[in-house]
Amino acid sequence: MANPLVSIIVGSASDAEEIAPARHALKRFGIEHEAKVLSAHRTPGELVAYLQDAETRGVKLIIAGAGMSAHLGGVVAAHSRLPVLGVPFSSGHLDGMDALLSFSQMPGGVPVSTFGIGKAGAKNAAYQAARILSLFNPDIKERMNQVLDEDKAQILGRSLPEI
Amino acid sequence: MANPLVSIIVGSASDAEEIAPARHALKRFGIEHEAKVLSAHRTPGELVAYLQDAETRGVKLIIAGAGMSAHLGGVVAAHSRLPVLGVPFSSGHLDGMDALLSFSQMPGGVPVSTFGIGKAGAKNAAYQAARILSLFNPDIKERMNQVLDEDKAQILGRSLPEI
Amino acid sequence: MANPLVSIIVGSASDAEEIAPARHALKRFGIEHEAKVLSAHRTPGELVAYLQDAETRGVKLIIAGAGMSAHLGGVVAAHSRLPVLGVPFSSGHLDGMDALLSFSQMPGGVPVSTFGIGKAGAKNAAYQAARILSLFNPDIKERMNQVLDEDKAQILGRSLPEI
Amino acid sequence: MANPLVSIIVGSASDAEEIAPARHALKRFGIEHEAKVLSAHRTPGELVAYLQDAETRGVKLIIAGAGMSAHLGGVVAAHSRLPVLGVPFSSGHLDGMDALLSFSQMPGGVPVSTFGIGKAGAKNAAYQAARILSLFNPDIKERMNQVLDEDKAQILGRSLPEI
Amino acid sequence: MANPLVSIIVGSASDAEEIAPARHALKRFGIEHEAKVLSAHRTPGELVAYLQDAETRGVKLIIAGAGMSAHLGGVVAAHSRLPVLGVPFSSGHLDGMDALLSFSQMPGGVPVSTFGIGKAGAKNAAYQAARILSLFNPDIKERMNQVLDEDKAQILGRSLPEI
Amino acid sequence: MANPLVSIIVGSASDAEEIAPARHALKRFGIEHEAKVLSAHRTPGELVAYLQDAETRGVKLIIAGAGMSAHLGGVVAAHSRLPVLGVPFSSGHLDGMDALLSFSQMPGGVPVSTFGIGKAGAKNAAYQAARILSLFNPDIKERMNQVLDEDKAQILGRSLPEI
Amino acid sequence: MANPLVSIIVGSASDAEEIAPARHALKRFGIEHEAKVLSAHRTPGELVAYLQDAETRGVKLIIAGAGMSAHLGGVVAAHSRLPVLGVPFSSGHLDGMDALLSFSQMPGGVPVSTFGIGKAGAKNAAYQAARILSLFNPDIKERMNQVLDEDKAQILGRSLPEI
Amino acid sequence: MANPLVSIIVGSASDAEEIAPARHALKRFGIEHEAKVLSAHRTPGELVAYLQDAETRGVKLIIAGAGMSAHLGGVVAAHSRLPVLGVPFSSGHLDGMDALLSFSQMPGGVPVSTFGIGKAGAKNAAYQAARILSLFNPDIKERMNQVLDEDKAQILGRSLPEI
Repeated sequence: MANPLVSIIVGSASDAEEIAPARHALKRFGIEHEAKVLSAHRTPGELVAYLQDAETRGVKLIIAGAGMSAHLGGVVAAHSRLPVLGVPFSSGHLDGMDALLSFSQMPGGVPVSTFGIGKAGAKNAAYQAARILSLFNPDIKERMNQVLDEDKAQILGRSLPEI
Repeated sequence: MANPLVSIIVGSASDAEEIAPARHALKRFGIEHEAKVLSAHRTPGELVAYLQDAETRGVKLIIAGAGMSAHLGGVVAAHSRLPVLGVPFSSGHLDGMDALLSFSQMPGGVPVSTFGIGKAGAKNAAYQAARILSLFNPDIKERMNQVLDEDKAQILGRSLPEI
Repeated sequence: MANPLVSIIVGSASDAEEIAPARHALKRFGIEHEAKVLSAHRTPGELVAYLQDAETRGVKLIIAGAGMSAHLGGVVAAHSRLPVLGVPFSSGHLDGMDALLSFSQMPGGVPVSTFGIGKAGAKNAAYQAARILSLFNPDIKERMNQVLDEDKAQILGRSLPEI
Repeated sequence: MANPLVSIIVGSASDAEEIAPARHALKRFGIEHEAKVLSAHRTPGELVAYLQDAETRGVKLIIAGAGMSAHLGGVVAAHSRLPVLGVPFSSGHLDGMDALLSFSQMPGGVPVSTFGIGKAGAKNAAYQAARILSLFNPDIKERMNQVLDEDKAQILGRSLPEI
Repeated sequence: MANPLVSIIVGSASDAEEIAPARHALKRFGIEHEAKVLSAHRTPGELVAYLQDAETRGVKLIIAGAGMSAHLGGVVAAHSRLPVLGVPFSSGHLDGMDALLSFSQMPGGVPVSTFGIGKAGAKNAAYQAARILSLFNPDIKERMNQVLDEDKAQILGRSLPEI
Repeated sequence: MANPLVSIIVGSASDAEEIAPARHALKRFGIEHEAKVLSAHRTPGELVAYLQDAETRGVKLIIAGAGMSAHLGGVVAAHSRLPVLGVPFSSGHLDGMDALLSFSQMPGGVPVSTFGIGKAGAKNAAYQAARILSLFNPDIKERMNQVLDEDKAQILGRSLPEI
Repeated sequence: MANPLVSIIVGSASDAEEIAPARHALKRFGIEHEAKVLSAHRTPGELVAYLQDAETRGVKLIIAGAGMSAHLGGVVAAHSRLPVLGVPFSSGHLDGMDALLSFSQMPGGVPVSTFGIGKAGAKNAAYQAARILSLFNPDIKERMNQVLDEDKAQILGRSLPEI
Repeated sequence: MANPLVSIIVGSASDAEEIAPARHALKRFGIEHEAKVLSAHRTPGELVAYLQDAETRGVKLIIAGAGMSAHLGGVVAAHSRLPVLGVPFSSGHLDGMDALLSFSQMPGGVPVSTFGIGKAGAKNAAYQAARILSLFNPDIKERMNQVLDEDKAQILGRSLPEI
């Protein structure tokens, strides 16, 4: 893939389904992305090597998804100065509350933008990526406005059944 | 103030101290901001009017801070297509857990980047603003890199006392 | 529908089943209602327009149901001075605890009556609507007393099996 | 006191300060109230006797405030068919989370309108009382609209300090 | 049933399966019990009438099981001076945490012995009843000792499979 | 002390103030008790030795108070067949929630009656001891009825201040 | 089995599947273990007898797995001076949060190393055992390094599907 | 310091007081340690460099203390194959629950032994270090046994005051 603007990293291949809404949404926005399985805990060296290269290759934003202790977002934000968007997954027994806190409660100076647990959060990370890239990319802005207008039209057409 | 790039909105004037770390950090990054007290619940019309005007005036990012039910982030993200960075405050009796969930658990399609509870989160929202604006503003990028290097130097100089 | 006294608003058409107990209970009480899908986040303008019209058309009470961040109750209470009854849904990964806090922990001055999570809460919102409307509508009061007496008779007839 | 429209019941005299915002707000709305210390657990007979008498004496709404297990709201709703507004207090070690759940998670058919924990919730119970009584009392409606307008003017006058 | 020593009360007939382990355990201990469906909220008068009669008829202990707000234990302890053993059920969306807090966090002076959530708690309430009745009933003590010895023999015979 | 009916055990001498309400209440009921500092973790042998002796010496009930992991209740219930009443303390950082769960969530077959966190729970353990001992000791029953009547008279005399 | 270095104890035979990942991992590391069902609550004497013997027989580490109140880890650490590694299980209604707190929140002086809830925690207890035994056993160290390298190779081979 | 067996790392110099009980306990056990301020987020390169050197210099165990997101334990365990003992601190607004989950809920294969929140956990990490080092160092074993005996003697001498 030539020139992806967004990099998506998940800690485990088993997170594929949870992160999919982010990837589908980026596609709708016409934003190229690359997706990697790299673990802060099990492949730390490879993760750091990947991050050092990413900015040079033109990546603008990193979406990091992980469950449980979910150190991925913090480790990515420690090794890259690009904006990091974190998506907590509900793997494990605590419904993703552990991952939500692990992403959001970062010490001052190392920011990770945290979104909701699971698929809704994954989708929102992509929507936020579109908002950020729209600040300086008019094509993405135009496509984003189309998508947001379609979303709104869709909900306006809905109603509750007779009862 | 001519041309602020960042708008900071808090739901109550009593949040001044909690949001201050965001404002101080923006100053360190050399990023102009304007700060407003506008409530999603008590001044909804004024909030919407302010948001419609903000993008035209050159605002690129909105930092929204609120405690308790903390609907401010969601309402801002509903009425503006700029990136919204949310800071949950610990006002009320639940240590900010209510606000953390209210900011982060947004439905798919309306993103709010959520940071940690209180002052650490406020600081991180500003640091994330710097990362985002650095994507297309080289002056901010240079200043951000200086600040991050200073931060690192400061922690490297620290040690634990003899015991 | 001519002259509904109660308006039910949910944030998503997928909430239809969760809000149904409120609608069935209103029917038992002989209270007309209208039901709308309107989102505080995705159709904010339409929601506000609907609310401005509602009181004039004779609506007395608004029941708002939503899950996750659940800003709907607060936004409705910000744009209408009618009593708002909020029902948190358990959509998302946190069993509705996020929505329960988002409905109940409102800042002082903008009240939302919050009920329990899910169907029991939906039913109770309708029962509370009946109690409120009974204060000045003797027909509803009479019908409410019949329903409450039937409920009580039903539970009195129940027993545990031999063991 | 002749003819109070609202009855306030707290489970303990030590709750006086927590419930005070409800009483002050009712005063601002020009709504007469009576305030009682009656416990669902320690004076159950007196509580039931009081409730049976209340409706006859003209009481329209009951605000019940309690901490910890907080059965007061449910017991009041079981013995009266008036609308019950519940305010959870943060007495005990769990910051009021116990009381919030005890008020809100009522079984279907016995509604208690629950507000936020502590003083903000107490204030909101009174504001909701004003909204409800305004449905059929034009004097209260007029006074409520004045109060809500004053509240809004007050917040519009506020700003954050220079930094 | 002549002369039950233990009364079991649940708030809803749908709790039959959850309370069953208490009833089976009482049977193993040779302790007669009666089981009633009576609700603190929906049949408060009948509950109080039942309680006033129970002590006279020879009941020594009351086991109360309920879910969600779970005011049953507190109401029983308010209207009877017999020991009350409470079993929180996991009905509703919060896994029984609401009921656990509602049973245990009683104000000083009105005790409810709380056991674990669901079937393990129900079983333990019966085992505690056996321990209490054994204090003054040698037949129950003898039978309890047999049951406890059987329980221990059963676990000692267990092992983990080869792996 | 000759012939105490109740044994109070706490895991640490620093729990003295938290358990005091149990001891004061037992005194009001005229129930003799002995109080020991014995830890399930730090003095397990001494604890077991004490428990084996207690029943022979006439102890009828054991009140166990502990914070944090709070294994004391379970260990006492494992080594004695007397009724065990557990009081969770709020030592540590989690407000006693850890101790509440550790006391209450016992596996089936080993019951610990759990009361609320801290002083209210300590008081209630003593009140429950009085209810249990009243089942077969008329002197304690008479004294308990006096105390309960005094408690009720005290709350009936209370009112909220003018406002 | 001659000379197991690790002893695994679970409180119930029904925990067999949850603890299995610890046993499989130990096998991969070439570390002999023995596995016992012994309960802190139901077979306390047998547990203590087993522990007194274990160190003499050459056991170096004890892995204790239990759910709910989960006193097993603390009781083992009280009766043995070997390192104790605790694995909380999610049996019961609270997803293992009760067991996690019961294992970790030990009073100062009686350490239990706590791992995550369920199978991931069980696996990690075994991996930690390998790290500890590697400190003085070169064979285990060599085998551990092989296993860790295999684990890493496995994750590096994974990727997300095209989308 | 020549040849420390234990390395203590905290993420911030402000953690000095929280980690002190670990350092004092190690001193009592006669175990040399070195203490460093190194952050997984703010000085990741320096942390990794330190870890690569530590094992060579003779360090056997690493105690990592951190608050909030608390990724330190996981990052240390990712870059070192020594046993890692984690101590969650209560910095931030969530009483250390965020840090407790971030330390303990590690993915399978990367173990961090987690202890309780704050000073009790810090003390226990040192006590566990003594248990581990005693497995192959008889001097430490002898000194540990002395300390544990002193601890026990101290608690046996304690009693509750007369009342």
